[in-house]
Amino acid sequence: MRIHTDLTPAESYQDVVVLVDVLRAATVAPLLFERGIDTLALTPSLRSARGAAREGWLLLGERQGVPPEGFNYGNSPAELAAIDFTGKRAVVVSENAPRWLARVAGARRVLLGSLYNAAAAAEAASRQAQETIALAACGFEGEPDLDDTLGAGLVAAILGERLPSAVRSGATRFAMSLLRAFPDPMEALWQSVAGHALRRVGLERDLAFAAQVSASVVVPQLVGQQAGAGSAPLYLFAPASRPS
Amino acid sequence: MRIHTDLTPAESYQDVVVLVDVLRAATVAPLLFERGIDTLALTPSLRSARGAAREGWLLLGERQGVPPEGFNYGNSPAELAAIDFTGKRAVVVSENAPRWLARVAGARRVLLGSLYNAAAAAEAASRQAQETIALAACGFEGEPDLDDTLGAGLVAAILGERLPSAVRSGATRFAMSLLRAFPDPMEALWQSVAGHALRRVGLERDLAFAAQVSASVVVPQLVGQQAGAGSAPLYLFAPASRPS
Repeated sequence: MRIHTDLTPAESYQDVVVLVDVLRAATVAPLLFERGIDTLALTPSLRSARGAAREGWLLLGERQGVPPEGFNYGNSPAELAAIDFTGKRAVVVSENAPRWLARVAGARRVLLGSLYNAAAAAEAASRQAQETIALAACGFEGEPDLDDTLGAGLVAAILGERLPSAVRSGATRFAMSLLRAFPDPMEALWQSVAGHALRRVGLERDLAFAAQVSASVVVPQLVGQQAGAGSAPLYLFAPASRPS
Repeated sequence: MRIHTDLTPAESYQDVVVLVDVLRAATVAPLLFERGIDTLALTPSLRSARGAAREGWLLLGERQGVPPEGFNYGNSPAELAAIDFTGKRAVVVSENAPRWLARVAGARRVLLGSLYNAAAAAEAASRQAQETIALAACGFEGEPDLDDTLGAGLVAAILGERLPSAVRSGATRFAMSLLRAFPDPMEALWQSVAGHALRRVGLERDLAFAAQVSASVVVPQLVGQQAGAGSAPLYLFAPASRPS
């Protein structure tokens, strides 16, 4: 087995790819399933999301820290954690992880990983992979960022315990080296560019939420796409099955 | 002014690019000028280097920690620091920084930077740049590595003091965040993939040498190319002029 890491997503993936977006899509997605959601979609397209709203989907998302017009909720895990979504369908609109889904959707398995579900993501990836587990950090606006590199490093470190003979790429070892440098993940989130952006709009509490390590056992897995009214489809997610 | 960082070199650069290779080419090159060398060339091609040897150039380089046949010296700064190169011409063969020179050579100015000459590299870059200073970390075998990311972060931090209004890219801020995480640069070199490779062949002392911060005021600058007998040219370097 090989464990490969990209600090921003590469052009394509074959086997299993874990898309890592700590702040915030890959933290919000497991949380929504914990809060009872039935069907979850991610999309970068406001228009596709609004089209889905006409079919009864809830809309979640933010622009500059505020839900766009017509949206039911923001994208703050600290806020969403208090809401019961039992039986609901929701579309999360965000500009980071969803825009990468077009690129990674061709892989055999696409999982969402973060600090919040790190151990479960590593478990699911190691169970599903045939040859290679790719950890694709989303970064921020097309550049590597600290939060997702640390997240990839944590998933890689847990994978390393499960698969001690796996070959780890240079970037994988680089990401893992950040774990020792930032023993408190909150410090890394605080220094990250994504963290700065959230702090600027008063969402410090999302950093604290996202810094929780392996608090969730839910691993969202891409299960399909649905054409949207806008420039991008709805990417449909369901929890990866857990070992019984 | 903009300060841009790539954790491995990008396709091309326009203005000033600082190629960062802490372990070891961008540490060795300033050292050789300090030791009196007259003309310095870098190349990734053993054959081009051997062609130059027939014209009287000294050959420096290592494969797995040992100088190849016909080479005068290795590539260990800890060893080279004891040698007087006054008036000599030398070709350094290495597989990392020199192979990226083909890619970056089109920039208006190409400088070599490391921890060892960080302050001087920042000074030269800020003096020469018109719009953008790009810090191109060489990484290891095509992947980001800790030593060069930290080196880029240090040059960026010094640039930030000189150019407080410069716009810093996300990856620049990412690299700078490692400075706080690794207050002792030796710790970062020790954990880097390049550092592991050197430790495996008994060259720990090169890590200690390369961890010296701003010990050199020499900034090697690309001044030309000379066709070689092999697959790559000799890239010719001279010290960037210093402010008087």
